[in-house]
Amino acid sequence: MSKIKVAVLGATGMIGQRFVQMLEDHPWFEIEGLYASEKSEGKRLREVLKVRDFGFSEDSLDARVRVLDVKHISKNARVAFSGIPSDLAGPTETELSLNGVAVFTNAGSHRMDPHVPIIIPEINPSHLDAVNDQASRNGGGFIVTNANCSSTGIAVPLHAIRESFGLKQVFVSTYQALSGAGYPGVPSLDAVGNVVPFIDHEEEKMEVELAKILGGYSKGGFEYADFKVMANCARVPVVDGHLESLTIETRDSPSLDELADALAGFRGEAQKLNLPSAPVRPVIVRTENNRPQPAFDVMAGSPDRARGMASTVGRLRQSNGYYKMFALSHNTLRGGAGGSVLNAELAKAKGLL
Amino acid sequence: MSKIKVAVLGATGMIGQRFVQMLEDHPWFEIEGLYASEKSEGKRLREVLKVRDFGFSEDSLDARVRVLDVKHISKNARVAFSGIPSDLAGPTETELSLNGVAVFTNAGSHRMDPHVPIIIPEINPSHLDAVNDQASRNGGGFIVTNANCSSTGIAVPLHAIRESFGLKQVFVSTYQALSGAGYPGVPSLDAVGNVVPFIDHEEEKMEVELAKILGGYSKGGFEYADFKVMANCARVPVVDGHLESLTIETRDSPSLDELADALAGFRGEAQKLNLPSAPVRPVIVRTENNRPQPAFDVMAGSPDRARGMASTVGRLRQSNGYYKMFALSHNTLRGGAGGSVLNAELAKAKGLL
Amino acid sequence: MSKIKVAVLGATGMIGQRFVQMLEDHPWFEIEGLYASEKSEGKRLREVLKVRDFGFSEDSLDARVRVLDVKHISKNARVAFSGIPSDLAGPTETELSLNGVAVFTNAGSHRMDPHVPIIIPEINPSHLDAVNDQASRNGGGFIVTNANCSSTGIAVPLHAIRESFGLKQVFVSTYQALSGAGYPGVPSLDAVGNVVPFIDHEEEKMEVELAKILGGYSKGGFEYADFKVMANCARVPVVDGHLESLTIETRDSPSLDELADALAGFRGEAQKLNLPSAPVRPVIVRTENNRPQPAFDVMAGSPDRARGMASTVGRLRQSNGYYKMFALSHNTLRGGAGGSVLNAELAKAKGLL
Amino acid sequence: MSKIKVAVLGATGMIGQRFVQMLEDHPWFEIEGLYASEKSEGKRLREVLKVRDFGFSEDSLDARVRVLDVKHISKNARVAFSGIPSDLAGPTETELSLNGVAVFTNAGSHRMDPHVPIIIPEINPSHLDAVNDQASRNGGGFIVTNANCSSTGIAVPLHAIRESFGLKQVFVSTYQALSGAGYPGVPSLDAVGNVVPFIDHEEEKMEVELAKILGGYSKGGFEYADFKVMANCARVPVVDGHLESLTIETRDSPSLDELADALAGFRGEAQKLNLPSAPVRPVIVRTENNRPQPAFDVMAGSPDRARGMASTVGRLRQSNGYYKMFALSHNTLRGGAGGSVLNAELAKAKGLL
Repeated sequence: MSKIKVAVLGATGMIGQRFVQMLEDHPWFEIEGLYASEKSEGKRLREVLKVRDFGFSEDSLDARVRVLDVKHISKNARVAFSGIPSDLAGPTETELSLNGVAVFTNAGSHRMDPHVPIIIPEINPSHLDAVNDQASRNGGGFIVTNANCSSTGIAVPLHAIRESFGLKQVFVSTYQALSGAGYPGVPSLDAVGNVVPFIDHEEEKMEVELAKILGGYSKGGFEYADFKVMANCARVPVVDGHLESLTIETRDSPSLDELADALAGFRGEAQKLNLPSAPVRPVIVRTENNRPQPAFDVMAGSPDRARGMASTVGRLRQSNGYYKMFALSHNTLRGGAGGSVLNAELAKAKGLL
Repeated sequence: MSKIKVAVLGATGMIGQRFVQMLEDHPWFEIEGLYASEKSEGKRLREVLKVRDFGFSEDSLDARVRVLDVKHISKNARVAFSGIPSDLAGPTETELSLNGVAVFTNAGSHRMDPHVPIIIPEINPSHLDAVNDQASRNGGGFIVTNANCSSTGIAVPLHAIRESFGLKQVFVSTYQALSGAGYPGVPSLDAVGNVVPFIDHEEEKMEVELAKILGGYSKGGFEYADFKVMANCARVPVVDGHLESLTIETRDSPSLDELADALAGFRGEAQKLNLPSAPVRPVIVRTENNRPQPAFDVMAGSPDRARGMASTVGRLRQSNGYYKMFALSHNTLRGGAGGSVLNAELAKAKGLL
Repeated sequence: MSKIKVAVLGATGMIGQRFVQMLEDHPWFEIEGLYASEKSEGKRLREVLKVRDFGFSEDSLDARVRVLDVKHISKNARVAFSGIPSDLAGPTETELSLNGVAVFTNAGSHRMDPHVPIIIPEINPSHLDAVNDQASRNGGGFIVTNANCSSTGIAVPLHAIRESFGLKQVFVSTYQALSGAGYPGVPSLDAVGNVVPFIDHEEEKMEVELAKILGGYSKGGFEYADFKVMANCARVPVVDGHLESLTIETRDSPSLDELADALAGFRGEAQKLNLPSAPVRPVIVRTENNRPQPAFDVMAGSPDRARGMASTVGRLRQSNGYYKMFALSHNTLRGGAGGSVLNAELAKAKGLL
Repeated sequence: MSKIKVAVLGATGMIGQRFVQMLEDHPWFEIEGLYASEKSEGKRLREVLKVRDFGFSEDSLDARVRVLDVKHISKNARVAFSGIPSDLAGPTETELSLNGVAVFTNAGSHRMDPHVPIIIPEINPSHLDAVNDQASRNGGGFIVTNANCSSTGIAVPLHAIRESFGLKQVFVSTYQALSGAGYPGVPSLDAVGNVVPFIDHEEEKMEVELAKILGGYSKGGFEYADFKVMANCARVPVVDGHLESLTIETRDSPSLDELADALAGFRGEAQKLNLPSAPVRPVIVRTENNRPQPAFDVMAGSPDRARGMASTVGRLRQSNGYYKMFALSHNTLRGGAGGSVLNAELAKAKGLL
């Protein structure tokens, strides 16, 4: 079986390079080309390296960046992975989809579009139906988004809890990594020895995206889930890994052990389909008293291809009838490029590619 | 008027040295001696420096540490400020108070004692009455504690809100500075580029201390306030300054402007008595979209003697009927040594010293 | 005596704001206005705050930034302090000086000009003669530069050593703070948990500026000192304070005690004239085994007006005939705005203003 | 061929756990047991985790730590890898060697012993002869040390330069990572936003170890190489990876290209023998203007088993007749556990195990 040729958009950025990492030796996909804006034309990936991990193949490092040209891509790639910054991504992604390309994007531009789904394969694989509505109008092209990085990390745990015990309210505070702001992103003078309690539009996104993701989809459109989210977002001097504190109100009153079991035992469609980048255990529950930590848990997930794709949950506690915990996930893997790669794998498994 | 001689206990530690800073040139108090355990005997303060600020007088830096001897102190000082680690402070402080010394302590050992108050002069000056119950039995000695560092920073804002609009629930997540763990405290390998979502007993303290502080006191003892606190505590790589996210439910429904006015306009007994270390404005409300930050706001407070004694609140928002905000205060000044100095000033103003 | 009105250029940047700090309540100078580029017009200083220290007066924080207009400034201020970025500063500073303004600048644009001196009052006050050559042509205006931040911190110690023992070779490696790159400057993803061994043109500057500063000046121009400098420059995740390792070869062979005495005992013209911002001791020698450190020593210098104006030297050692030591100075105070304020004080004391 | 059973000593520490990582699935060695002091007896590795990398097998994480018992180890393992802290390692390692165990240690205790070699297989494989002198007296046991972490990283580049062009003087300043101090090691309050220009005995070690390593060995003992080293050592807030600035004087005067070629082209005995943990290219020369950086280069080395085993050199420059460059290596892999594993591989290849 020949691999599907895919384009990586925004290859000079943090997310674009995470796409390259996840697509190296991918069993189903093959990188057709790296694309970015004109000013990077012709540069090799190694000259514009943003991701710290020493893990690229020499071939990837030597690959040259081309100017993003919709016509060229439409002819040569059936799939595009987009790490274009959100403020620029909108029209380009639309145009690609109208030219028949399946766009899997990390950008926020289209997340709230009425027929664009925010997919997390463990949660809402049925939202892929929205793709048909798009594709029928677009000559086969469509747009699928992954969730905002801070929503993603807690979405699967919250879904697991909601399925088992109902979910009424979520109070979340984030400790978000610097890589979430891209490159150059946060100036070091704001980051070193400091916390910035503001990330533009992040709280609003969390409060509405989670309801869309955990809700339903029918011909009429998306039906939002009815729990409430109250978010406080802050940036901390961590390179990768969004940590989040959660205080939640559930419908039922499970014991902490029952809660832990529901989280650790959860498996979704991604696991059932055995998608290549799906972690065997999408939620890892830790019982040490000081975990999860970015330092230890950011790359959680197995097999190797799914490193950085699991959410780690720890410090399950109860207080005044609420459940408290901390959750951690990799913001540019599970919460970024990895999320979209997993979505493309789901689409492929469902026959949409 | 001659100044009151005071002893500084635990002078080799972070909090002890903050006591020294706040007592240099104090209008009412004069340091009689610096005390610590035997292993530091005879060392000069400059040899055991923990506090980064370059702000000690040469005299202080040259002062020699003596071994803590209750009899000696009882004879030479009427007041002791204690920065002894909580696990060691208990018996020493009890003994000093039984010997007639007024002990103002940052240690947690006695905070839950039935007749030991946790005083914040802006909130509960009447709790000083508990001191009489102690003193009558102790020959004039007593123990007064300041609150836990993470409780202190939000106590005044919460009190201001409660007074004006009632308070039902508080969801708080902390971004706590490294100095809160003392020295050597947190290993750098756990701190650099990381967040540790665990601080021993901190959440429990916050959930009960705030209710004691904002509650009442009568002969019968302390009456705890009836709002609920749900706390998640984490350590971030910041040197000084505890940032905390707050999501609160009030009884009434003020507008955000009314809320801001109640916070910014609040003045307590410390301000009315014009205590030397009391900030003119105990709560500073910032309207920039990305404040408070440790980098900019940790030393908030005026006049100069009150630097680091104000709480800064910002990002007032509403969501689903809850009010959200971030608060910041200096954990070893307002939330540590400064809190006890202010308590001693209150006691003095009230004729208890 | 009325104060001299001075303009602060580049007031939205790190150095510009350090100028404001050093000029608050200055005994000789008074800020006439804050100037920057058009995009900041009308903003209050508090809205564009870059310097972390909580130490501005409310008046300064409320001051509004105006667009830099040479004609306006020439009419209203006899002196301009320039914190304009080096790549933009050149023409503006030239124009101001041609309009009769005395420009004291931190920018590097003119440092190598044949009649522009790089002044450090402790070292080369006689270089001010170059100013007359400029002024006679410019209707009284002239340009004086302070040294590059990494040169400044070691210049006074090296000068003190050279005066006493001769100086042949200097091997220097820098550990430079983030504030040296201005704001936004170094991206946090390059800074957190990392060291970047490259600062554009910094090594070249150090290798030539020190020779100009420690050299002589006559009508014919600058005569460069004849010792060699071999520099390696790197950026570390420190907010303020350039630390530098020095291995030096001297002409004579003093004992380490003699070396320490020469450093600690050194006094220059700035001290003799008792300039307001001159530290009583320009070089502080520390004998602890682990100093100087940015955390403790960056603000070294007394009296209060001279905080951050002293160089701290420590760890004097010998190895294979070379002398080794570490030196630290505040890169945006002594090595930036403070350097130029001290230069203006020298010019005033010498009757040039 | 059955694998050689090896004991890991000090398994609860940073270096001990790096040994475990490098010995997982090793083609020649097999871990017989993890050993540490009594207080860790029975704990699983996952409970005492120090190394951040998420890369241990579940089996390793579940392995229990045993109390270090020389008799037990002597019976069950022919080889011991020691990550015991230097102040405790001496007698234990001696005793093991006297009981016939081949000890490969990271501790400094025996490095200066007259018959204990400091081996770097790329440089001085012939020093293994010293082992015979030990073994003949010890019933087959012996001690081999790896170099100090800051010496190791520059030893191979310096050796490559010396072989080609001669070497007279080395001026080195270090930017050393926190993991070099072990755990708990450096307190975070000393590390965050700070540099500490002191590492106990590190400079002395560098100035003498390099001469021993690059020197010769004969029956009479070690003959020290005759170049001079002048070292300044400092700790920076980086987790892993020692960066070092080098200014060197050579005997010949190669061009920078010739210097680069000598470094990049160097291959040693480790490469010729194709040892499992030997990097194909022991010195990687980078031509970007801002490398090497810990963030990007700390894990340099291929194949996979040799990640973190190469030294990366960059910024080759000339100044006043000296050559300047920066070098980086992984302090707990190449400069720690990896160094000893490579030494054991050399010993095995040479028939000593």
